[in-house]
Amino acid sequence: MAIKFALLGCGRIGVMHAQNLAQADGARLETVFDPNVAAAEAVARANGCTVSTSAEDAVDKADAVLIATSTATHADLIELAAKAGKAILCEKPIDLSLDRVRACRKAIEGCKVPIQIGFNRRFDPGHRAARDACAAGKIGKLEQVVITSRDPGMPPRGYTAVSGGIFRDMTIHDFDVARFMLNDEPTEVFATGSALVDPTIGSEFGDFDSIMVIMRSADGKLCHINNSRRASFGYDQRIELFGSEGMIISDNKKAHELKLYGSTMTDAAEPYLNFFIERYAEAYRAEIAAFIAAIRDGRPTQATFDDGYRALVLAEAAVESARTGKKVEVRDIG
Amino acid sequence: MAIKFALLGCGRIGVMHAQNLAQADGARLETVFDPNVAAAEAVARANGCTVSTSAEDAVDKADAVLIATSTATHADLIELAAKAGKAILCEKPIDLSLDRVRACRKAIEGCKVPIQIGFNRRFDPGHRAARDACAAGKIGKLEQVVITSRDPGMPPRGYTAVSGGIFRDMTIHDFDVARFMLNDEPTEVFATGSALVDPTIGSEFGDFDSIMVIMRSADGKLCHINNSRRASFGYDQRIELFGSEGMIISDNKKAHELKLYGSTMTDAAEPYLNFFIERYAEAYRAEIAAFIAAIRDGRPTQATFDDGYRALVLAEAAVESARTGKKVEVRDIG
Amino acid sequence: MAIKFALLGCGRIGVMHAQNLAQADGARLETVFDPNVAAAEAVARANGCTVSTSAEDAVDKADAVLIATSTATHADLIELAAKAGKAILCEKPIDLSLDRVRACRKAIEGCKVPIQIGFNRRFDPGHRAARDACAAGKIGKLEQVVITSRDPGMPPRGYTAVSGGIFRDMTIHDFDVARFMLNDEPTEVFATGSALVDPTIGSEFGDFDSIMVIMRSADGKLCHINNSRRASFGYDQRIELFGSEGMIISDNKKAHELKLYGSTMTDAAEPYLNFFIERYAEAYRAEIAAFIAAIRDGRPTQATFDDGYRALVLAEAAVESARTGKKVEVRDIG
Amino acid sequence: MAIKFALLGCGRIGVMHAQNLAQADGARLETVFDPNVAAAEAVARANGCTVSTSAEDAVDKADAVLIATSTATHADLIELAAKAGKAILCEKPIDLSLDRVRACRKAIEGCKVPIQIGFNRRFDPGHRAARDACAAGKIGKLEQVVITSRDPGMPPRGYTAVSGGIFRDMTIHDFDVARFMLNDEPTEVFATGSALVDPTIGSEFGDFDSIMVIMRSADGKLCHINNSRRASFGYDQRIELFGSEGMIISDNKKAHELKLYGSTMTDAAEPYLNFFIERYAEAYRAEIAAFIAAIRDGRPTQATFDDGYRALVLAEAAVESARTGKKVEVRDIG
Repeated sequence: MAIKFALLGCGRIGVMHAQNLAQADGARLETVFDPNVAAAEAVARANGCTVSTSAEDAVDKADAVLIATSTATHADLIELAAKAGKAILCEKPIDLSLDRVRACRKAIEGCKVPIQIGFNRRFDPGHRAARDACAAGKIGKLEQVVITSRDPGMPPRGYTAVSGGIFRDMTIHDFDVARFMLNDEPTEVFATGSALVDPTIGSEFGDFDSIMVIMRSADGKLCHINNSRRASFGYDQRIELFGSEGMIISDNKKAHELKLYGSTMTDAAEPYLNFFIERYAEAYRAEIAAFIAAIRDGRPTQATFDDGYRALVLAEAAVESARTGKKVEVRDIG
Repeated sequence: MAIKFALLGCGRIGVMHAQNLAQADGARLETVFDPNVAAAEAVARANGCTVSTSAEDAVDKADAVLIATSTATHADLIELAAKAGKAILCEKPIDLSLDRVRACRKAIEGCKVPIQIGFNRRFDPGHRAARDACAAGKIGKLEQVVITSRDPGMPPRGYTAVSGGIFRDMTIHDFDVARFMLNDEPTEVFATGSALVDPTIGSEFGDFDSIMVIMRSADGKLCHINNSRRASFGYDQRIELFGSEGMIISDNKKAHELKLYGSTMTDAAEPYLNFFIERYAEAYRAEIAAFIAAIRDGRPTQATFDDGYRALVLAEAAVESARTGKKVEVRDIG
Repeated sequence: MAIKFALLGCGRIGVMHAQNLAQADGARLETVFDPNVAAAEAVARANGCTVSTSAEDAVDKADAVLIATSTATHADLIELAAKAGKAILCEKPIDLSLDRVRACRKAIEGCKVPIQIGFNRRFDPGHRAARDACAAGKIGKLEQVVITSRDPGMPPRGYTAVSGGIFRDMTIHDFDVARFMLNDEPTEVFATGSALVDPTIGSEFGDFDSIMVIMRSADGKLCHINNSRRASFGYDQRIELFGSEGMIISDNKKAHELKLYGSTMTDAAEPYLNFFIERYAEAYRAEIAAFIAAIRDGRPTQATFDDGYRALVLAEAAVESARTGKKVEVRDIG
Repeated sequence: MAIKFALLGCGRIGVMHAQNLAQADGARLETVFDPNVAAAEAVARANGCTVSTSAEDAVDKADAVLIATSTATHADLIELAAKAGKAILCEKPIDLSLDRVRACRKAIEGCKVPIQIGFNRRFDPGHRAARDACAAGKIGKLEQVVITSRDPGMPPRGYTAVSGGIFRDMTIHDFDVARFMLNDEPTEVFATGSALVDPTIGSEFGDFDSIMVIMRSADGKLCHINNSRRASFGYDQRIELFGSEGMIISDNKKAHELKLYGSTMTDAAEPYLNFFIERYAEAYRAEIAAFIAAIRDGRPTQATFDDGYRALVLAEAAVESARTGKKVEVRDIG
């Protein structure tokens, strides 16, 4: 029997999730809800499902809920679905406030539903293969992780105002990837940043668009993250694992393997896949497949509520470090 | 209104086409037929369509027919569908016999149905981008084409016996790619081969498993093809276009962009995608989309019956050249 | 007229410099000195020059002095040569003590001799081309620099004891490269490290073998450096320049462009060139050519005494930061 | 004791050989001769050797002779030096006429001097490593060789007139590389060509500037060569060895490992090293070192007179094949 899904949120990422649910083995998209009724109806029409009149209504009709609404509603909807006993796949972050995440955690204590946070990069075939190869000892003992993560372009100005800042909004993916790759907890965080792409991001919002982070784990492993809100050559997503006996790089993806040669260049490839919808298309499908498998097999999900919490703790630590100019002990945050 | 498809043939490639039809915009898989009823029923169950009791029955129910049966039946089914006025997407080759292809052409003269031959590589995003870049003048005037095309492993022994030989069965794809890339007709063909992978292929079937071809067009463009029935590192599919002002290479594809470094190697990637189903997954979807668009827009297909005929003529020329040790004038064949 | 060189120090790097001087246009290796007379004689024999009985003697006989002795003697020999009015090419670092470097600076004030510090990487064709392309605006405005710099293997234990620690000994090259690439002064330094390759490096010497650094310039440019004393796949030397309109990577070098394909891997290249003598062979020749040209043309050298001082200041800042866990303002150091 | 060399011919390649001899271990450039006295004197001055008044005079003064004169004089000078008992390193080809080569072979019968033909590519580190890896069984049994060899630009018109045609002048290198890589004798040759770069090469000289060749060995190994007289992106020199268990590619070389990324491309490298002097710089040094070692150790050279003869036989076969449109049996030529 296919698991019946309710999709909450029919924005850009919701539309994508709807298509993936419609084609996923073992899933059926039952209903969608969005306060923007036209958006919900368009998704319902394209994927042959019903439109619900409220989130509660949608949750009622389903076995599992995919939460793709705006960040501010995530925690409420998790609580709603958890109390209704429905499995939950929720886009990251759980919330921008650590306190709210802690309250949510408390509120759903005892609800035995599977919860998976939308850390899509954990399910990217290349990143996953990198972690597996590392876990299999292919590079000996892991010593350094270097994460390069640059978006193709600045988000709309309105988004920046409510994003919670680059560390909570964008770097949070990389904090999760760092934990996933380190297979260990960072204990110290140093972070700094600049507003180079758009200086008014700094002057108006006190935010950065270019950041660098160093983290250290209890046993001394080192991890570097760099971010930019704008890469002219496409979505720049690279992970490097350096170990005692080798190195693994999970490199960028292109639409195809064309190379151009001429009087001024050789080996020139196309710009990278533009953004997360394209770059992580397979990852998004795989995260749904993994979620379905976790429900079916009664096993823990591969990106838990606690993973969502831990990534946010690292983001908090980064915010604090960038403010004070000191490395922050993670245990002082949460 | 979605175009209703009948799928004839539910073998390995039929199963794949069924899935692609089920997910294609503008198409609906209406019915399937296969003499192996169990195979047809499995495909029908997986994709929610009916099972027909005969090819005639299936053709009747549909607007368009996808022929994925064994080669020997292609021409008959093309004639059946064409006379019934249905659009036709037929796997390559049309037939192993040039005479049969000519007879088929005559038989369907006057039938105004769209016909597309399953030259999937024309629809591969990388190969297509290579041709487009060449057509756009990115490398000046095209002078040389080098096609490397090696299968991951020998086909089953039974297949070899009925395949028509490597030139008609395997190289035919490359003959079509050559025409597609040259955007011109080869006028001379030289071919030779060996049975290196399995010498009994030569002694028992008079066939080759390793071949090399050179072709020349009327204005002197040169084209090389090499084939092997077995590449230990995966399906090896590369196209090189060399022009007066540059070069384009459409290179192999991997499942992901992992690179491994250790004491004995650097930059080591994974083996290539295994075979055509994986390597040309996007191409197979794109060929269906292009076929649907051609029907909709009343435009010629991008791989015509004549393209199917022309590729087979080159295969015949190669067979003749390998036999005689002389270059063969293509006009002497057809 | 060829410039007559005295080579001081006939260890491993001195031997290499002797060969390069012997083949350099516009230079003649006149004499060598090393307290190890046998070493000096071997170099003299191989390159057809005299052996001097003291550094003073050698300096007297030459127009220019190449100092390739142990670090502790650099400042003394710079003073000796500067006061004798001889041009100076001195291996890095000037000294491990900032105070000694300042004293040396004062001692040679007024000596108008050309001085070049052996920051060989500035002369590497790839790194140089990267900087030139950046300076030419090929990537717009520079925003981030990422420097990966890992030695193939741990130095001898005795060396660690006198090296001054990884920041002053090894990272100093990267601090200089950072300044060279940023074309600007870092104003803030954060550094941390671990002893992962050999934990006793930490317990016995209080040193690290694995470090990460973040620096920031006055206008907000960000720079990351990572180091390891051991890379199993060879000398890992990469520089990435990220700008508003593009990116430049100066990548690792291999002895040749061989790639191996098999059932477990594709595109596998050889391990990288082993260490600085091999990797920077061209750079070492180019630094001598640039030094000769600077003398000839009466122009400033491309790696000045002040560059040597500035790199050491950054190393000091890193030592301080790693000790305190705070970012260090560079102006507080020197 | 260093081996004393006489260099005959002080043109472009002679100048390069003179520098390499001047720096080679175990060699001393004793004297040079060129009918163009000014050219000889310039080389003598730059490398500190004498100028001889005739080839005989030069040969007399030396232990070994490096022949870098125009092709038409090679065979005479080989005979002169061989009869004088001097070791011979002669640029390719021995002569454009097979009859002359045979006569030369007869004339020097009984002269026990080491003779090495200037097939520089045999000594290229990458090509050599490819052959060694193949010989070591890294790719199982060799089945196919693909040689891509394109010059950066057309030679001067005057050169074409006397070059003997593209097969004898340019492809001869590739014929030798084919034999070196196959480690076996081609028994059949098919060749064809066009004048695409400059059609007047065809109409005026009956020559080609673009060619393709297929060869087959007795046991069925296949080899393809393609040539163009002009590659807009630099000297294109690639060798691919395809075997039963893998593949080796010896790829093109660049001056450095810079890659550029921008809004229209990623991974864009510089054009390739321009031509043989740059691309094969190491190979030219290595061929001299190998020649010196062969003399010293009394071992056969690694590119013998017979290798020179065999390559020319293949060139003859190609000329014949291109003329007749048939594959040529090599044994019918020589």
